[in-house]
Amino acid sequence: MALDVRDRIPPAESGLGLTPAQQARMDMRRNRFTAATTRNVALGHVQAAVVVVPRDLAFEFLAYCQRNQRPCQVLEVLDPGDPEPRFAAPGGDIRTDIALYNVYRNGELVDQSRDIVDLWQDDSVGYLLGSNTSVDLALNRAGVQTTNHRWVLRTSTPTVPAGRFHGPLSVTMRWLTPAEVIKAVQVTSRFPFNHGAPIHIGDPAELGCDLQAPMSGAPPGERPAGLVPVFWACSMTPLLVAEASKVDLMITSAPSKLFITDILSEAVSIP
Amino acid sequence: MALDVRDRIPPAESGLGLTPAQQARMDMRRNRFTAATTRNVALGHVQAAVVVVPRDLAFEFLAYCQRNQRPCQVLEVLDPGDPEPRFAAPGGDIRTDIALYNVYRNGELVDQSRDIVDLWQDDSVGYLLGSNTSVDLALNRAGVQTTNHRWVLRTSTPTVPAGRFHGPLSVTMRWLTPAEVIKAVQVTSRFPFNHGAPIHIGDPAELGCDLQAPMSGAPPGERPAGLVPVFWACSMTPLLVAEASKVDLMITSAPSKLFITDILSEAVSIP
Repeated sequence: MALDVRDRIPPAESGLGLTPAQQARMDMRRNRFTAATTRNVALGHVQAAVVVVPRDLAFEFLAYCQRNQRPCQVLEVLDPGDPEPRFAAPGGDIRTDIALYNVYRNGELVDQSRDIVDLWQDDSVGYLLGSNTSVDLALNRAGVQTTNHRWVLRTSTPTVPAGRFHGPLSVTMRWLTPAEVIKAVQVTSRFPFNHGAPIHIGDPAELGCDLQAPMSGAPPGERPAGLVPVFWACSMTPLLVAEASKVDLMITSAPSKLFITDILSEAVSIP
Repeated sequence: MALDVRDRIPPAESGLGLTPAQQARMDMRRNRFTAATTRNVALGHVQAAVVVVPRDLAFEFLAYCQRNQRPCQVLEVLDPGDPEPRFAAPGGDIRTDIALYNVYRNGELVDQSRDIVDLWQDDSVGYLLGSNTSVDLALNRAGVQTTNHRWVLRTSTPTVPAGRFHGPLSVTMRWLTPAEVIKAVQVTSRFPFNHGAPIHIGDPAELGCDLQAPMSGAPPGERPAGLVPVFWACSMTPLLVAEASKVDLMITSAPSKLFITDILSEAVSIP
């Protein structure tokens, strides 16, 4: 079992220069990362959604994550005022090392910015939440494609509230062949820090999925015969929570723009 | 995977009267529980250590648990002021439904009491942490004895600090036959909410175990030939944290006196 991520830090990669994860963070810090998604960046590393709230909301948001572990599995919670993920990415900075941030005030998306240095306060608290993109390498190796037929959707399924935080669940929907569905269940079950097993297979209406306006990607077209919709809880859920909860200030990584950690996904998997 | 405990609530047991878990809580509430330990009570249910801190320490203690998931896996965090574990034990009350509480002020154990009604504040925050006794039934079924050769020990191994919380790790040490060791690793790995796999096998000195003054039980005598010491992180760790951290007020369940939840251990296990 790998629930205690702290005893599974992979050794630093040998050789000179930056590791792939460090390089990716540096590119984003210097605003040189221009791709539409961090998918396939430093493949095999845990990618994390990042949330930042003021200290007075810090307990309530961590309690929210505890109550909603499928979408919001906390990989690391930072000390108030500290922007460096000392466990998951020593030397990293969550204020600059993400390609795009969403800034919410009172439930409104008021800005998208390439860093949050000016918004950072002495008491800002950051959270790293495991993302499904972390499992792409393992899925690929098992013969499951991860490139096509993949969307992040809003649903009408409520999450469990905590303090001022509440809102609907966001899911990753993917269309897979029946053989891929079986493999995908097996593989993703091994990655509890990155949403684990699917939460539903089959009918998007069961979760109340909004198929018209995906949070990431163009709307799905006609589903090819023989492909099955499969759903995982998604770490974009905090974006919906920010909208619903209407707290004074809440910052998240933007959809498809994740933070690249030093942690190898296999290092926080079930053997 | 069972990381999201919330979708695994077992159905209420049918029939009239109280369930075994409800009966155990009621006995403790009425001070009718007089056994030395809750071991074997409502066997097969998750037993939880309970911690209570004031609201101003709530984030720091939850962050501490996030950073030390092996000893302190949070099964439920309660809303400030709410003594009812609405997820793990609806109708229960963490102020009364434990046989004995430890009360710490400034790092000193100032009282042991049979309820904490008078100490409870409008902003008290309670945490339920999974305990190794939750796995006894599964171990028994696999042929591993759980009655003898079992101690809770202090160690000199530090945990990861968070805010004002820090302190050494507490462990459960058990002496098992080599065949039992293998089975015990297999079985306990399936229970991530109750400490998961062992953290060490072999030498108590490796963890800095204090063999002279166990937190629970008489000191171990001479180890019989052929038995192997096996160590699990223990949910008594917060008692050592209370001593070390010296916060104004911190309340814990006493050693061997755990809270009995409605949750079946198998319901929060890995299949």
